[in-house]
Amino acid sequence: MRQLIKNVHLLTMDEQYTEIPNAYVLIEDETIQQIGRMVEPLPQADTVIDGNEGILLPGMINTHTHVGMIPFRSLGDDVPDRLRRFLFPLEQVMTKELARASAQYATAEMLLSGVTSFCDMYYFEDDIAEAVAEMESRAILGETIIEMATCDFTTPEQALDWCDETFIQKWQHHPLITPAIAPHATNTNSPELLARIIDLGKKHQVPITMHVAEMTYEMTEFAEKYQQTPIAFLNDLGYFDHHFIMAHCIFTEESDLALLDDKQVSVAHCIGANTKSAKGVAPVKAMLTHHWDVGLGTDGPSSGNTLDLFTQMRMFANFHKTYEHDRGIFPAKEIVALATIGGAKVLGLDTLVGSIEVGKKADVTLIETQSLNMFPIFDAYSALVYSANAGNVSDVWVNGKHLVANKKLVKHDSQKLKTNLMKQMDTFIDEAQKRAATIK
Amino acid sequence: MRQLIKNVHLLTMDEQYTEIPNAYVLIEDETIQQIGRMVEPLPQADTVIDGNEGILLPGMINTHTHVGMIPFRSLGDDVPDRLRRFLFPLEQVMTKELARASAQYATAEMLLSGVTSFCDMYYFEDDIAEAVAEMESRAILGETIIEMATCDFTTPEQALDWCDETFIQKWQHHPLITPAIAPHATNTNSPELLARIIDLGKKHQVPITMHVAEMTYEMTEFAEKYQQTPIAFLNDLGYFDHHFIMAHCIFTEESDLALLDDKQVSVAHCIGANTKSAKGVAPVKAMLTHHWDVGLGTDGPSSGNTLDLFTQMRMFANFHKTYEHDRGIFPAKEIVALATIGGAKVLGLDTLVGSIEVGKKADVTLIETQSLNMFPIFDAYSALVYSANAGNVSDVWVNGKHLVANKKLVKHDSQKLKTNLMKQMDTFIDEAQKRAATIK
Repeated sequence: MRQLIKNVHLLTMDEQYTEIPNAYVLIEDETIQQIGRMVEPLPQADTVIDGNEGILLPGMINTHTHVGMIPFRSLGDDVPDRLRRFLFPLEQVMTKELARASAQYATAEMLLSGVTSFCDMYYFEDDIAEAVAEMESRAILGETIIEMATCDFTTPEQALDWCDETFIQKWQHHPLITPAIAPHATNTNSPELLARIIDLGKKHQVPITMHVAEMTYEMTEFAEKYQQTPIAFLNDLGYFDHHFIMAHCIFTEESDLALLDDKQVSVAHCIGANTKSAKGVAPVKAMLTHHWDVGLGTDGPSSGNTLDLFTQMRMFANFHKTYEHDRGIFPAKEIVALATIGGAKVLGLDTLVGSIEVGKKADVTLIETQSLNMFPIFDAYSALVYSANAGNVSDVWVNGKHLVANKKLVKHDSQKLKTNLMKQMDTFIDEAQKRAATIK
Repeated sequence: MRQLIKNVHLLTMDEQYTEIPNAYVLIEDETIQQIGRMVEPLPQADTVIDGNEGILLPGMINTHTHVGMIPFRSLGDDVPDRLRRFLFPLEQVMTKELARASAQYATAEMLLSGVTSFCDMYYFEDDIAEAVAEMESRAILGETIIEMATCDFTTPEQALDWCDETFIQKWQHHPLITPAIAPHATNTNSPELLARIIDLGKKHQVPITMHVAEMTYEMTEFAEKYQQTPIAFLNDLGYFDHHFIMAHCIFTEESDLALLDDKQVSVAHCIGANTKSAKGVAPVKAMLTHHWDVGLGTDGPSSGNTLDLFTQMRMFANFHKTYEHDRGIFPAKEIVALATIGGAKVLGLDTLVGSIEVGKKADVTLIETQSLNMFPIFDAYSALVYSANAGNVSDVWVNGKHLVANKKLVKHDSQKLKTNLMKQMDTFIDEAQKRAATIK
């Protein structure tokens, strides 16, 4: 099956930032077969999609989220310590049906906003994997390991055994889903457990993802208990000899940067969530100088609210320019790179996706430029970072499949996904409202 | 003519933050006639609009923009000192036809994003006023006064004479348009000219709007020349005994806050533009503590790119929470207040608009909550600040007229406005591309 996407402004996001105005892309089955300028005769295809002078870029990559948490959105946004006041208690009433319906909804929302790959950390991750596979998105899905009873396992050991014996094996060879282990944070798992987790990750060769250097109390605790930063502590445990995706890293220190100079380091930078919660701004400029791989993440719908990367790209520009006191730093094209090929590197998917190059999998996003906010365009990267919003996403392909067309899901009905989610939310809503009432 | 908007979640933004779930609003001609809970029988009306459980809030108020500058959007976004490298030189090729087409386009874009009033500063402001009046938006429109030859006047004195003898008198009694004088900045007009401007403002009782305390070189210049801050300098000239709308005020000092303690002070806070340009974050918390009126502004499409206030509300939350190291500061409802009644106070329009109260003019915005990003809603203010984007605006009324319905302009065709603007842009595009080429 050959699909021709014609009449687009192509941002390949390859190493040379090759940009082709008035371009076409030919997809054969799941692969990008040909790209070029619109010169007749165009290649033959079974289906032709007129891009109508839109911007075609690689599918965007959300390096950190919690797709099971749609039910929490807009709950207690401005309340300090939500983790312990809202999230942990309400997760006790999370069910696998709710997690699954939420994951399906969140995946749909991401697809509609141009996100084609993401990295998730939540509970009931097998049910989430079923939902994501049904939606045909690409994802790394990590089962949370945390030193307390959760909605899906009584002990972290049980959860780990399940990862070892069931979850990882079930999904390890899926074409779109990569199973992963997701220790919740450096300070919510014992050192012994963290050691067992990295061993298990290495045994199965699956990624590990964790919240790292996100909380001030985490930093204090590590300084007091171990006279080390959390990153140095994880280095001693061997985490950086493995594919390890760290979310946040707000409080990365100079010593961490120096320590990991010859390691491959992957950071999911969640600027929106980190600043909404007043935690701070991770030193991304320094990370990139030290050759760390950095991608953008929305965090969960409870922390970051929206799951699209347009919000994050614009936040990234404004925060990092202001923090570095330099308007010229991080020009728009570098920010689009973080949202695409940068994220692909963080997820270890850059040989497959993250740029539009012949031979790569066809994960691509088309942005319409008809809406008033998208004119004029002197610089397509600028238009994406500073002018666009998620509502400008027109079409999306994952692995060659046309999943969003003309701003609508091709194979699913958004309103049905919503109804399906609402059906599972009754108990959750009751508990959430009780809790909100005690806090107001 | 009676219009009933039913089945909405009403955020009145009155002083008590009255919120009515499952509400209706009755508009009679241009006025809000009745509001209440949906209890049968509902009031009779000529037209009934089903809000479909959307959020109804006052029309949003953009306190600072430059509607003539759509042609500059996405041009040199990341280039330091754009004002002198791009804006001033390219404004030499600005024509009144281009300013007018741009103003019409920008007003349409704002209406579609839920903005019903704005404050503008540009050239050819009479042509802009004609365009805005045709679009039926509410606006304060200020002719720029600057100590150099501009695209519309050879000297600032000519421009001021024109304001005095023609422009102000033409528009002073228009139901939607308020003419204003817009000295460009504290350091681009001589003290003598600034004195003449405030006299003229007082003579005609029209607002004055100016860029104040925005540039580091402005602050240095005033410190060196006058041993004063720009704000103290303007106070000596009598600006704060008048309706004076200051844009930016990034570098407001403690002494400014103390100095103006018994004055009415109005600030158009442009968090998106101020941080994109790496200038900094204005001390809004302190301003509000000193009872300054603060509204949100997008700045021009060249500086802020988008003209909607959703982007600004979210930027506001994240920047001010982070700067104050306090997640709890500025809860979402206070931010929605800045975007509505706060802005109305800044523009001196709060007796007319800015809240949904019986007797006020019907400037209202309906946000649909069907899109996936708008669910769930535990807190409607949170949903507006953290979840919504401009694409969620469904319907807009200004002065009782239904100008946007189902995400489309009722009386105009967006694509025609765009074609009309493009027709005027040929010379501008040539010059812009030449300039961009020398800078890359």
